[in-house]
Amino acid sequence: MSQASASPTPPGAAAPTGAPLIASDRVEGTAVYDAAGNRLGAVETLMIDKASGHVEYAVLSFGGFFGIGSSHYPLPWSRLHYDTRMAGYVVDVTEAQLAEAPSFPRDETVDWSDSGWGERLRGHYGPTPYGSRDGL
Amino acid sequence: MSQASASPTPPGAAAPTGAPLIASDRVEGTAVYDAAGNRLGAVETLMIDKASGHVEYAVLSFGGFFGIGSSHYPLPWSRLHYDTRMAGYVVDVTEAQLAEAPSFPRDETVDWSDSGWGERLRGHYGPTPYGSRDGL
Repeated sequence: MSQASASPTPPGAAAPTGAPLIASDRVEGTAVYDAAGNRLGAVETLMIDKASGHVEYAVLSFGGFFGIGSSHYPLPWSRLHYDTRMAGYVVDVTEAQLAEAPSFPRDETVDWSDSGWGERLRGHYGPTPYGSRDGL
Repeated sequence: MSQASASPTPPGAAAPTGAPLIASDRVEGTAVYDAAGNRLGAVETLMIDKASGHVEYAVLSFGGFFGIGSSHYPLPWSRLHYDTRMAGYVVDVTEAQLAEAPSFPRDETVDWSDSGWGERLRGHYGPTPYGSRDGL
Protein backbone atom coordinates (compact mmCIF):
# COMPACT_ATOMS: atom_id res chain seq x y z
CA MET A 1 0.00 0.00 0.00
CA SER A 2 2.96 2.27 0.57
CA GLN A 3 3.54 1.75 -3.13
CA ALA A 4 0.07 3.06 -3.86
CA SER A 5 0.54 6.15 -1.75
CA ALA A 6 3.85 6.82 -3.45
CA SER A 7 2.37 6.21 -6.90
CA PRO A 8 2.98 9.11 -9.28
CA THR A 9 -0.30 8.24 -11.00
CA PRO A 10 -2.80 7.90 -8.16
CA PRO A 11 -5.79 5.63 -8.68
CA GLY A 12 -8.47 7.38 -10.68
CA ALA A 13 -11.81 7.91 -9.07
CA ALA A 14 -11.34 11.62 -8.98
CA ALA A 15 -14.99 12.45 -8.61
CA PRO A 16 -17.80 14.93 -9.15
CA THR A 17 -16.44 17.64 -6.85
CA GLY A 18 -13.28 19.64 -6.49
CA ALA A 19 -12.84 18.32 -2.98
CA PRO A 20 -10.13 15.72 -2.28
CA LEU A 21 -12.68 13.50 -0.55
CA ILE A 22 -15.78 11.87 -2.01
CA ALA A 23 -18.67 10.24 -0.16
CA SER A 24 -19.15 6.54 -0.81
CA ASP A 25 -22.86 7.06 -1.40
CA ARG A 26 -22.02 9.59 -4.10
CA VAL A 27 -19.78 7.10 -5.90
CA GLU A 28 -22.46 4.42 -5.73
CA GLY A 29 -24.77 4.85 -8.67
CA THR A 30 -22.33 6.95 -10.71
CA ALA A 31 -22.37 6.10 -14.41
CA VAL A 32 -19.49 4.14 -15.95
CA TYR A 33 -18.42 4.51 -19.57
CA ASP A 34 -15.98 2.69 -21.79
CA ALA A 35 -13.12 4.52 -23.49
CA ALA A 36 -15.35 5.12 -26.50
CA GLY A 37 -17.91 6.90 -24.36
CA ASN A 38 -20.54 4.17 -24.39
CA ARG A 39 -22.46 3.93 -21.13
CA LEU A 40 -21.73 0.51 -19.66
CA GLY A 41 -23.59 0.79 -16.38
CA ALA A 42 -23.00 2.20 -12.92
CA VAL A 43 -21.01 1.68 -9.75
CA GLU A 44 -23.02 -0.63 -7.52
CA THR A 45 -20.83 -0.62 -4.42
CA LEU A 46 -17.22 -0.41 -3.25
CA MET A 47 -15.31 -3.30 -1.67
CA ILE A 48 -13.24 -1.98 1.23
CA ASP A 49 -10.40 -3.79 2.95
CA LYS A 50 -11.63 -3.84 6.54
CA ALA A 51 -8.20 -3.72 8.11
CA SER A 52 -6.46 -1.19 5.89
CA GLY A 53 -9.49 0.95 5.06
CA HIS A 54 -8.51 0.84 1.40
CA VAL A 55 -11.03 0.64 -1.44
CA GLU A 56 -9.91 -2.43 -3.35
CA TYR A 57 -12.67 -2.88 -5.91
CA ALA A 58 -15.61 -1.04 -7.36
CA VAL A 59 -18.39 -3.46 -8.19
CA LEU A 60 -19.86 -2.34 -11.49
CA SER A 61 -23.40 -3.20 -12.48
CA PHE A 62 -23.60 -3.64 -16.21
CA GLY A 63 -27.28 -4.48 -16.29
CA GLY A 64 -26.78 -7.58 -18.38
CA PHE A 65 -25.20 -5.47 -21.09
CA PHE A 66 -22.86 -8.33 -21.82
CA GLY A 67 -25.54 -10.99 -21.76
CA ILE A 68 -27.95 -12.76 -19.50
CA GLY A 69 -26.93 -13.70 -15.97
CA SER A 70 -23.67 -12.15 -14.88
CA SER A 71 -24.07 -8.44 -14.41
CA HIS A 72 -21.81 -7.45 -11.50
CA TYR A 73 -18.16 -6.93 -12.32
CA PRO A 74 -15.58 -6.14 -9.62
CA LEU A 75 -12.92 -3.81 -11.03
CA PRO A 76 -9.80 -2.52 -9.30
CA TRP A 77 -10.56 0.99 -7.98
CA SER A 78 -7.56 2.28 -9.89
CA ARG A 79 -9.23 1.39 -13.20
CA LEU A 80 -11.90 4.03 -12.65
CA HIS A 81 -11.13 7.55 -13.80
CA TYR A 82 -13.66 10.30 -13.34
CA ASP A 83 -14.42 12.28 -16.48
CA THR A 84 -16.00 15.64 -15.69
CA ARG A 85 -17.16 15.94 -19.31
CA MET A 86 -19.00 12.62 -19.09
CA ALA A 87 -20.02 13.24 -15.47
CA GLY A 88 -19.10 9.65 -14.80
CA TYR A 89 -16.25 7.18 -14.55
CA VAL A 90 -14.38 5.99 -17.61
CA VAL A 91 -12.98 2.47 -17.40
CA ASP A 92 -9.71 1.84 -19.20
CA VAL A 93 -10.57 -1.76 -19.99
CA THR A 94 -11.83 -3.02 -23.31
CA GLU A 95 -15.31 -4.42 -23.83
CA ALA A 96 -13.68 -7.75 -24.62
CA GLN A 97 -11.81 -7.71 -21.31
CA LEU A 98 -15.03 -6.97 -19.46
CA ALA A 99 -17.00 -9.61 -21.30
CA GLU A 100 -14.52 -12.20 -20.07
CA ALA A 101 -13.96 -10.64 -16.64
CA PRO A 102 -14.90 -12.37 -13.38
CA SER A 103 -18.49 -11.48 -12.60
CA PHE A 104 -21.53 -12.65 -10.69
CA PRO A 105 -25.31 -12.39 -11.07
CA ARG A 106 -26.90 -9.37 -9.41
CA ASP A 107 -29.03 -11.64 -7.24
CA GLU A 108 -26.02 -13.54 -5.92
CA THR A 109 -23.79 -12.68 -2.97
CA VAL A 110 -20.08 -13.23 -3.42
CA ASP A 111 -18.11 -15.01 -0.72
CA TRP A 112 -15.24 -12.52 -0.59
CA SER A 113 -13.42 -14.80 1.81
CA ASP A 114 -13.08 -17.27 -1.07
CA SER A 115 -9.50 -16.73 -2.20
CA GLY A 116 -10.47 -18.16 -5.58
CA TRP A 117 -12.17 -14.85 -6.28
CA GLY A 118 -9.01 -12.94 -5.61
CA GLU A 119 -7.02 -15.29 -7.80
CA ARG A 120 -9.44 -14.90 -10.71
CA LEU A 121 -9.53 -11.12 -10.37
CA ARG A 122 -5.78 -10.83 -9.99
CA GLY A 123 -5.31 -13.15 -12.93
CA HIS A 124 -7.59 -11.01 -15.06
CA TYR A 125 -6.61 -7.49 -14.03
CA GLY A 126 -3.27 -8.03 -12.36
CA PRO A 127 -2.52 -7.16 -8.72
CA THR A 128 -4.49 -4.34 -7.17
CA PRO A 129 -2.45 -1.19 -6.65
CA TYR A 130 -2.74 -1.73 -2.92
CA GLY A 131 -2.35 -5.47 -2.74
CA SER A 132 -4.94 -6.31 -0.13
CA ARG A 133 -3.38 -8.54 2.50
CA ASP A 134 -6.01 -11.17 1.84
CA GLY A 135 -4.53 -11.82 -1.57
CA LEU A 136 -7.32 -10.22 -3.56
CA MET B 1 -0.27 6.42 4.22
CA SER B 2 2.69 4.10 4.06
CA GLN B 3 2.66 4.47 7.82
CA ALA B 4 -0.88 3.14 7.90
CA SER B 5 -0.04 0.09 5.81
CA ALA B 6 2.82 -0.65 8.15
CA SER B 7 0.66 -0.11 11.21
CA PRO B 8 0.72 -3.08 13.63
CA THR B 9 -2.78 -2.15 14.75
CA PRO B 10 -4.82 -1.80 11.58
CA PRO B 11 -7.84 0.51 11.64
CA GLY B 12 -10.88 -1.17 13.14
CA ALA B 13 -13.92 -1.54 10.96
CA ALA B 14 -13.72 -5.27 10.95
CA ALA B 15 -17.26 -5.91 9.82
CA PRO B 16 -20.30 -8.21 9.75
CA THR B 17 -18.66 -10.98 7.74
CA GLY B 18 -15.61 -13.18 8.01
CA ALA B 19 -14.42 -11.89 4.65
CA PRO B 20 -11.50 -9.44 4.54
CA LEU B 21 -13.53 -7.09 2.34
CA ILE B 22 -16.78 -5.31 3.15
CA ALA B 23 -19.14 -3.53 0.76
CA SER B 24 -19.54 0.20 1.31
CA ASP B 25 -23.31 -0.13 1.14
CA ARG B 26 -23.17 -2.68 3.94
CA VAL B 27 -21.21 -0.32 6.17
CA GLU B 28 -23.65 2.51 5.47
CA GLY B 29 -26.53 2.20 7.89
CA THR B 30 -24.67 -0.01 10.35
CA ALA B 31 -25.43 0.85 13.98
CA VAL B 32 -22.82 2.66 16.08
CA TYR B 33 -22.51 2.24 19.86
CA ASP B 34 -20.48 3.94 22.53
CA ALA B 35 -18.10 1.97 24.76
CA ALA B 36 -20.94 1.47 27.25
CA GLY B 37 -23.10 -0.17 24.60
CA ASN B 38 -25.54 2.70 24.14
CA ARG B 39 -26.75 3.02 20.56
CA LEU B 40 -25.57 6.41 19.30
CA GLY B 41 -26.71 6.21 15.71
CA ALA B 42 -25.52 4.77 12.42
CA VAL B 43 -22.91 5.17 9.71
CA GLU B 44 -24.29 7.59 7.14
CA THR B 45 -21.54 7.45 4.55
CA LEU B 46 -17.77 7.05 4.13
CA MET B 47 -15.44 9.82 3.00
CA ILE B 48 -12.89 8.39 0.58
CA ASP B 49 -9.66 10.05 -0.52
CA LYS B 50 -10.14 10.13 -4.29
CA ALA B 51 -6.47 9.84 -5.13
CA SER B 52 -5.36 7.22 -2.63
CA GLY B 53 -8.59 5.23 -2.43
CA HIS B 54 -8.39 5.34 1.34
CA VAL B 55 -11.40 5.66 3.62
CA GLU B 56 -10.53 8.68 5.75
CA TYR B 57 -13.74 9.27 7.69
CA ALA B 58 -17.00 7.60 8.49
CA VAL B 59 -19.76 10.17 8.77
CA LEU B 60 -21.93 9.14 11.68
CA SER B 61 -25.54 10.18 11.95
CA PHE B 62 -26.48 10.63 15.58
CA GLY B 63 -30.06 11.65 14.93
CA GLY B 64 -29.84 14.73 17.10
CA PHE B 65 -28.93 12.55 20.06
CA PHE B 66 -26.63 15.31 21.27
CA GLY B 67 -29.13 18.09 20.66
CA ILE B 68 -30.97 19.93 17.94
CA GLY B 69 -29.20 20.84 14.72
CA SER B 70 -25.84 19.15 14.29
CA SER B 71 -26.31 15.46 13.73
CA HIS B 72 -23.58 14.34 11.34
CA TYR B 73 -20.19 13.63 12.88
CA PRO B 74 -17.16 12.69 10.75
CA LEU B 75 -14.98 10.23 12.64
CA PRO B 76 -11.64 8.77 11.58
CA TRP B 77 -12.31 5.30 10.13
CA SER B 78 -9.80 3.85 12.59
CA ARG B 79 -12.08 4.86 15.48
CA LEU B 80 -14.72 2.36 14.36
CA HIS B 81 -14.38 -1.19 15.62
CA TYR B 82 -16.90 -3.82 14.65
CA ASP B 83 -18.39 -5.74 17.56
CA THR B 84 -19.96 -9.02 16.45
CA ARG B 85 -21.84 -9.25 19.75
CA MET B 86 -23.41 -5.84 19.18
CA ALA B 87 -23.72 -6.40 15.43
CA GLY B 88 -22.48 -2.86 14.99
CA TYR B 89 -19.51 -0.55 15.33
CA VAL B 90 -18.24 0.55 18.72
CA VAL B 91 -16.65 3.99 18.83
CA ASP B 92 -13.76 4.44 21.26
CA VAL B 93 -14.60 8.08 21.89
CA THR B 94 -16.41 9.42 24.91
CA GLU B 95 -19.86 10.97 24.73
CA ALA B 96 -18.27 14.23 25.84
CA GLN B 97 -15.77 14.08 22.97
CA LEU B 98 -18.58 13.50 20.50
CA ALA B 99 -20.74 16.24 21.94
CA GLU B 100 -17.93 18.71 21.25
CA ALA B 101 -16.77 17.11 18.01
CA PRO B 102 -16.94 18.89 14.65
CA SER B 103 -20.33 18.19 13.12
CA PHE B 104 -22.85 19.51 10.64
CA PRO B 105 -26.64 19.47 10.26
CA ARG B 106 -28.02 16.53 8.28
CA ASP B 107 -29.54 18.92 5.75
CA GLU B 108 -26.22 20.63 5.07
CA THR B 109 -23.50 19.65 2.63
CA VAL B 110 -19.93 20.00 3.82
CA ASP B 111 -17.36 21.64 1.59
CA TRP B 112 -14.65 19.02 2.01
CA SER B 113 -12.26 21.19 0.06
CA ASP B 114 -12.41 23.65 2.97
CA SER B 115 -9.16 22.97 4.81
CA GLY B 116 -10.76 24.43 7.93
CA TRP B 117 -12.72 21.20 8.24
CA GLY B 118 -9.57 19.14 8.22
CA GLU B 119 -7.98 21.40 10.80
CA ARG B 120 -10.96 21.14 13.14
CA LEU B 121 -11.16 17.36 12.76
CA ARG B 122 -7.42 16.89 13.15
CA GLY B 123 -7.46 19.19 16.15
CA HIS B 124 -10.22 17.16 17.75
CA TYR B 125 -9.22 13.60 16.91
CA GLY B 126 -5.59 13.97 15.95
CA PRO B 127 -4.15 13.08 12.53
CA THR B 128 -5.93 10.35 10.59
CA PRO B 129 -3.99 7.10 10.44
CA TYR B 130 -3.49 7.71 6.74
CA GLY B 131 -2.92 11.43 6.68
CA SER B 132 -4.89 12.40 3.63
CA ARG B 133 -2.76 14.60 1.39
CA ASP B 134 -5.28 17.39 1.64
CA GLY B 135 -4.49 17.81 5.30
CA LEU B 136 -7.71 16.27 6.57
